[in-house]
Parts: sequence; C-alpha cells; structure tokens
Amino acid sequence: MAPRPDGVSLQRWLYDELRAAILSGRLPPGARLPSTRDLAARFELSRGTVLGAFAQLDAEGYLAGAVGRGSFVAAELPDRRIDRGDRGEPTSIKKRDGRSSVRESKSKNKSKDDDSGAQRPAVVLSNRGRLLARSAFQLSGRSIPARAFRASQPDLDAFPFELWARIAAKRARRTRRDLLGDGEAQGYRPLREAIAGYVGMSRGIACSADHVVMLGSVQQAIDLAARLLLDPGDAAWIEDPGYVGARFVLEAAGARVIGVPVDPGGLDVEWARRHAPDARLAFVTAGRQAPLGPPLALERRLSLLEWAHERGAVIIEDDYDSEYRFAGNPLAALKSLDDDGHVIYCGTFSKLLFPALRTAYAIVPDRLVEPFVAALSLTARHVPLDQQSVLHEFIADGHFGRHIRRMRVLYGERAEALTAHVTRHLAGLLEVPPIIAGLDAPAFLPRGTDDNEVVRRAALEGIETRALSRYAVDRPAPAGLVLGFASVGVDDIASGVIALARALS
Amino acid sequence: MAPRPDGVSLQRWLYDELRAAILSGRLPPGARLPSTRDLAARFELSRGTVLGAFAQLDAEGYLAGAVGRGSFVAAELPDRRIDRGDRGEPTSIKKRDGRSSVRESKSKNKSKDDDSGAQRPAVVLSNRGRLLARSAFQLSGRSIPARAFRASQPDLDAFPFELWARIAAKRARRTRRDLLGDGEAQGYRPLREAIAGYVGMSRGIACSADHVVMLGSVQQAIDLAARLLLDPGDAAWIEDPGYVGARFVLEAAGARVIGVPVDPGGLDVEWARRHAPDARLAFVTAGRQAPLGPPLALERRLSLLEWAHERGAVIIEDDYDSEYRFAGNPLAALKSLDDDGHVIYCGTFSKLLFPALRTAYAIVPDRLVEPFVAALSLTARHVPLDQQSVLHEFIADGHFGRHIRRMRVLYGERAEALTAHVTRHLAGLLEVPPIIAGLDAPAFLPRGTDDNEVVRRAALEGIETRALSRYAVDRPAPAGLVLGFASVGVDDIASGVIALARALS
Repeated sequence: MAPRPDGVSLQRWLYDELRAAILSGRLPPGARLPSTRDLAARFELSRGTVLGAFAQLDAEGYLAGAVGRGSFVAAELPDRRIDRGDRGEPTSIKKRDGRSSVRESKSKNKSKDDDSGAQRPAVVLSNRGRLLARSAFQLSGRSIPARAFRASQPDLDAFPFELWARIAAKRARRTRRDLLGDGEAQGYRPLREAIAGYVGMSRGIACSADHVVMLGSVQQAIDLAARLLLDPGDAAWIEDPGYVGARFVLEAAGARVIGVPVDPGGLDVEWARRHAPDARLAFVTAGRQAPLGPPLALERRLSLLEWAHERGAVIIEDDYDSEYRFAGNPLAALKSLDDDGHVIYCGTFSKLLFPALRTAYAIVPDRLVEPFVAALSLTARHVPLDQQSVLHEFIADGHFGRHIRRMRVLYGERAEALTAHVTRHLAGLLEVPPIIAGLDAPAFLPRGTDDNEVVRRAALEGIETRALSRYAVDRPAPAGLVLGFASVGVDDIASGVIALARALS
Repeated sequence: MAPRPDGVSLQRWLYDELRAAILSGRLPPGARLPSTRDLAARFELSRGTVLGAFAQLDAEGYLAGAVGRGSFVAAELPDRRIDRGDRGEPTSIKKRDGRSSVRESKSKNKSKDDDSGAQRPAVVLSNRGRLLARSAFQLSGRSIPARAFRASQPDLDAFPFELWARIAAKRARRTRRDLLGDGEAQGYRPLREAIAGYVGMSRGIACSADHVVMLGSVQQAIDLAARLLLDPGDAAWIEDPGYVGARFVLEAAGARVIGVPVDPGGLDVEWARRHAPDARLAFVTAGRQAPLGPPLALERRLSLLEWAHERGAVIIEDDYDSEYRFAGNPLAALKSLDDDGHVIYCGTFSKLLFPALRTAYAIVPDRLVEPFVAALSLTARHVPLDQQSVLHEFIADGHFGRHIRRMRVLYGERAEALTAHVTRHLAGLLEVPPIIAGLDAPAFLPRGTDDNEVVRRAALEGIETRALSRYAVDRPAPAGLVLGFASVGVDDIASGVIALARALS
C-alpha cells in the first residue's frame, strides 16, 4: 500500500487504498477482505478507523457481506475495469496535459462504431462548440495597471471605491432575509426602477422597471436574444468593421452573420436592406460605432426601425460607452424612437463603474420580456442579489450620476490630450478624427499599412493597442489602431504617443 | 405643445416637443424652425435653454442650417415616417400590453414577403427560442418565509449571515485595485483552489484549481456543456423521472433527450446502453437521484464511465445536495472514478449557503477546460469578483466546513421528524422511504393517485409541494410528492404533516 500523503486522514487513506485495490482488480469481485481487527493491527490503526473506511466502502457499493461473516468485494462489479492502472496514487493530482488537445473533428461520428478499445474516440467538440470556444477577447484577469492605450477600460483609480465599500459594508450589516433567498430572475426591482429612471433622463428611453432585465454582461444579452429570435442559419446584420465579441457570440448561436459596411453615417442601412433584407436581427452600436466612432445618422436610424417594423426583425442596440459624450449631452438612444417594440437596448455598468462588477442590463420590448426572462432563468438564473442591491443604493443616493459627470470631464481632458499629442508628434503617420465620445478613439494609419505589425512594434515600446483589422468581418477594415484614452492619465498619454511615434518611425 | 411633465427640465421638454413635431411630420423636412429668440419669448424660456435644445436636435441629425440663416428640419429624413402617431406624449410610459402575445409561429417565414404594411409580421420567437422560453421553475423572487414543504431550499434562518456580513464588510474596506478590473473568466484563483481542496476531501475528487470553473449556476454549466458537445439532434440521456431544469435546458440546446428509467439503483445504465448507445452526453444526479433519492449503484457508475470512455461521451454529474448525508460521510462522487476525463462535476453554493449568492462551479476534465472557459467568457464573461472573494474567505477561514457540519445535524433531525410524523399520521396514504441524504424526500402516493390534484388540495391547506409527475420525461412517474424538509423547523414539519393528512383524507 502507498504511504499516507500529508493532510489525509487515516480513515481516508485506508478507504482510498482499498478502493484502488478493488478497482484495479488486486482485490477481485467476491474476494474476502482482511478482518477489521487484522487490518487495524497491521497498520497500527484504531478499530474505529478501519470500521469507518469499511462503512464508507460498503455505502458506496464496493463491499458485500453478512454481519459476522466478514466483508467481501461486491460480486456485481463489471469484469472489464474502467480503471487503467493509474490509480496507484489516488490522491495525486494529475497535471493538465495539453489544454489545446481537444480534437476538432468535423466528422465526429467517424469512430463511433470502433468499439475494439484500441482506438477510443476522444471527447470532441460539436460543430457549434468550436465556434463557441473561440477565445478572442477572453478575460485573462490581468491586474497590471492600465497602460497607454488599453481599450474599453474605465479609470479604476478614479472610481470612488471607498464610498462603494461603505455602501457595501452598510448593506452587508443590514442583510435581510429577502436578500438571501432566490431573487427574481428579471432582477432586483428597486435597481430596475432606478435604471428605468436613468435611461429615461439620460437617453430619452420611455420605459418602466417592467422592461428592464438585469444581466451579467451585454454578451449574455446578445446570446439570449440570438437564441430566442434566430434559428441556425438565420441572417443577422452586424457592423463591418464591428465588435468581435458580438460577431463571435452570434456565430456561435448559429447566425449567418452579414457584415454591413460602415461609413461616416454609421451602419449603411440601405446597403443592408438591399443585400440582406430577410435578416431577423441587427446588432448596432448606434451611439458611437465601435470601433470607428460615428453615431448612426438619424435618417438611418429611422430606416433601420422601418426595416425592423416591416420585417418583424429585432435590433440590438449596444450602448456601452456613448454615455461619455464630451460636447453636449449624450445622444438620445435609437431605442428612444422605438415605438413598436423592435429594439433591445443594452447597457453595462462594467464600463461605467468597474469591470469586476459584471452587471449589465437590457431594456426589452413588451412582448419579449417574458421569453427573455424565462430564457435567462433557464440558462443562468440571475445576477447575484447582493451586488444588485449595492448598485441600487449607489444610484439612488446620487453617487452614480456624480461619478459619470466627473468621468465625463476627466475623460474629455484625456481625449483632448490625445488629440493634441497625436497632432504634434504623429502628423502624417496617424490620423485621429475629433473625439466626441467614448473610452477609445480610432486612429488611422496610411492606407496599406499592416496594422497588426504596428501593434507588435508598439508592444515592444510598451504600448497596448488593437489593430482595426481585427474588427473586420466580410471586407478589409481600414488600417489603423484603437487607442483607449480613458484609463490612462495625461502624462502617460503624452509619453505613450511619443513611444508610438518611435514604433511608427 | 404638450404641457411640461413634472421632473422634466425645460430644455428637455422643448427638445422632446420639437422632436415629436419633426417625427410626426408637423414640422416637415426642410421646414424652417422659429428663431431661438422667438421661441424663448413665446414659452418664457431663456435663450440658453432654447439653444441647448437646438444643439441636441442638431447633434442628433434632426436639424440642418447655416450659421445666421436659421435652423431647418433636415431634408434627408425618410418620407415614410416610422412614427405612428403615438408620440404625443413622448415621456409617457406605455403599459405592458399582454406579455404572452408573442406569436409562436411554426412557419415564421410566412409573412416575410408581405411588405404591403397592412399586415406587419410580429416579432416571433425562433423554434429553439420557444424551447428556451419555457418558464417552468422560473425564479419569482418570492421572499415569504419557507413553508412546509418547500423543496430544494436550505434554511436561511440558520445561515450565519452576520459572519458573512462581517467578512463582506471587511473585504469591502480592503477593496484592492486588482479586484476592480476584469477577473479571470475561469474564476478567482484563490476560490478555485479552496474548492479543489474541498471536493478532494469531501468527494474524493482529485483535481487542482486549474480544473475548477466558477459559474453563476448549474444551469449555466449544463447549457454550456450541451452547446459545446452536442449539435442539434444529438442524443443526451437524462434520468426519468428527472430534474426538469436539466431537461429543458438540454432541449433548448437542441438535444434529443432520452429519458432513461430510474430504479433503486439509480439511472438504468444498461437500458440506456441498449437503447441509445450513441448519445453524446448523460446528465445524472449520481449522489442522490433527483427526485427519487437512490444513489447510483457502483456497478452502474463503472458501466456509465465505461460507456463514456468507449464512445467519447461526456457525463454531467449534478451533485447539488448529496453533501447532506445523514449517516456516515457523503459518498465519493462519480467524478472520483473518472480517470480519463469524461465527467463534468457540478456543485452549487446556492443550495449549500443561500440562493441569492448564485455561485456554482464545475470540475471540468483537462481537455475541456479551455473550450469551457472560452465559451463562458464569450456568452457571459464571469461571476462577479467581489463575492467570489467573500466566498473564498468564508471557506478559507473554516466557516464553510462548520456551517455544512451544523446543517447536516439540523437537516438530519428534520428528516427524522418528517419520517416519524409521516409514519404516525399518514400510514397507508403516503410512503416516505428512509431519508439518507439531501434537502428533499420523495413521498409515494397509492398507485393511480393524481398527484397534481393532491398538490392542489395540499395548497388549500397551506402546504407547498411538487408532484412527482412533473418530473416525468418519456414515461409516467410514480404518483407522489417531493417534500422539502431542510428549510422548515420540526414544529412546522409536524403541523405540515397533519395538514397534509387533511388534504389526503
């Protein structure tokens, strides 16, 4: 028998060893086990310890035996062991052996009838599983401070986390029973009411708490909407270039994704209506097109809604960062023009407050609320109640509004700094159009530049950027970079631009 | 123009009214707007207020005009208005009009070519969307105290929430920057380490933090596994009777669900291997079959693993409540026998601690970790970091282990009380087999009883139960009830049994 590893109780060790002996066939079906007295004496164990291990083995079906006649290995155990000899150290932890070794077989049935055992079929992903498992934009949890020019990041240092902590602590001390039990799948009602009030004021969206659904992320909203509204093969419009996370989740849901060209008016709705009028869904960043920046022009908004209205299609409006508009008020949402329930509007607190919060929401048309909530409840249950209630207090006490206003000023200064430094140091090399809103800016390289190569060279200078070409769907994207400016101070922006100039020269 | 509603700023009111006039055609494309001076005078507004409203309309594309020549309604607005006249009160909140009115059209293309406008196609759910939107077991957030015999509920009054609150408050005060940013999609590593240690000790599962994936719910684990491993139409085994939530989420993912009979040895693996050997997935509650109770017999565990091994299939082991074993230790998990990576083991803290926590985990085989985490990141991102860290401290400080041990004693007493009272008051009417583990017990009615009718009659006596027939898949379930005993005190159990006797007499 193997020596007892540290931290394993005597009873557990004996149980593990006997179980391994049975499973490996060293103690075959029907074999008589040594008496508890003998075992106790041999391994210097108490009789109780041995009885405990026997009881556990008996409860789990390894043993059979009549009182007083000793214990036997159960006779019903299958002859062919599933064990393949590596049970010698039952408590050892096997190393991860090659995480990327899942075979991606397109003809996954090919070895199903091969039962000889010599060539066992590996666990293979399904066809859609391969789409689901693409890991672009996967969260790595890197905690290093933001560097110039990390994209899609709010400034964590500017977040009033002491205030947040005070509310969370107060909330924790007052935990009430009704915040321990199952929450409503749709979300904590007081929070939904606060959000309905906020989007009414800030975005012109007329809705009530009944239309708000709390979610873990905008990704989840897209995933649920796609599965609820599309059958595999149904077409969906997305902006080209556009948000890769949306494209991947739509494709994983079986959508036939149609990349629709983007120009200075945003998504070219007329192109889409001509080329793919039968789409069932459109994904659009109407407030600030990601990654190119323009808001969707008014006549296109109306045309998009008209198309959805004529076709019974649904529009997902992802409004993740147009909150931060540096001149005038945020634009009214596309959703504010949605009179007959074709727009699912999505917002997220992960970008407005801090990413670890993982709380987002959707404003869902009347007729889709019930299916949407049912699907959420079935596939995920709900967002943890605790933080919904902290977030509610943060909004209700006015801290949310204040934080947004402060950040609008701060990010505006950073956008100005970025524009000024790029103009000074990168004229002719990189063109940044006026920054009106958002956390990131597109920056265009001379036509024909390999922007992935620029990203690599910038990385050598300590600069984080993304290539615009990564956002391409059906056609090449303009050569360029996405520069995040919100999470880095003006000094870092200045030195970042100079580093970028080195990379580009 | 409409009067200004309470709480709406003057500028917002003017903006809303002018926008409504433009969208309704009262101010047609190309029309000249009154001068800002005139408007200010007419409505007794400051000039700045009017300029602000104009600027917003201009930014959103409603206006066109040259400096000094006045403002005009943009000429490019489409002729055909999407507005249908109900814009008169742009800030009013429309009532939810009939939540269940989504048309469930099986031939959803039927009106696609009907562009006349008279009969507009409604937004319809996809075929799979109709499966996804079934709302059995939907969370309603009811906060009333648990009554006899609410199922699948831990005792919230027994949860040490003051201790939890103290940890949460301490944690909130020490919020660190690295807990504000994006977390790792796989989950907070210290928590994953704690869980790996716990399942090693408590369930004999040899794994490391690398195999643990944090999730919002077991539902999410099933949904992700089904989509990763099954293509639509692939077969999956589930227990019959079995957990409805698992069946629905598998069906919504397109699985061809095969109900496999359950007998006192649990899932009849040989039946399944004879009748549907080509399934790609099996869902099993091996520790305590839900709802009937028996653990999966050892020889069946081995046979199930052998099948998965031969076929490259995957087994989902849902171990949501077998932690609470009232005689001896919890049984080793099926996963503890899984030598070559065919079992995804799922546990949830929602049942062990409190439901609002919404934190679950899966122990995933080596080769599936990366696809699983990528799919999680794509469709949901990750569980909020904050509560992962609170949960980690709760486990690391030993509170978790203590709570489980205390609850095992408490629930054991309640199980005994239930058995005793049923024996005394319901002999011949209701049979409760010995309760060995779990939060609920099955209770069998005389053959042929309509258990749904019994549930209705029990409800009139103030008793909450579920009919066993609700768990049926492909064949009738035995007539009976599911009685939750964990969340109700022994006095309520006593009076509950008497009330049940009234309902049955």
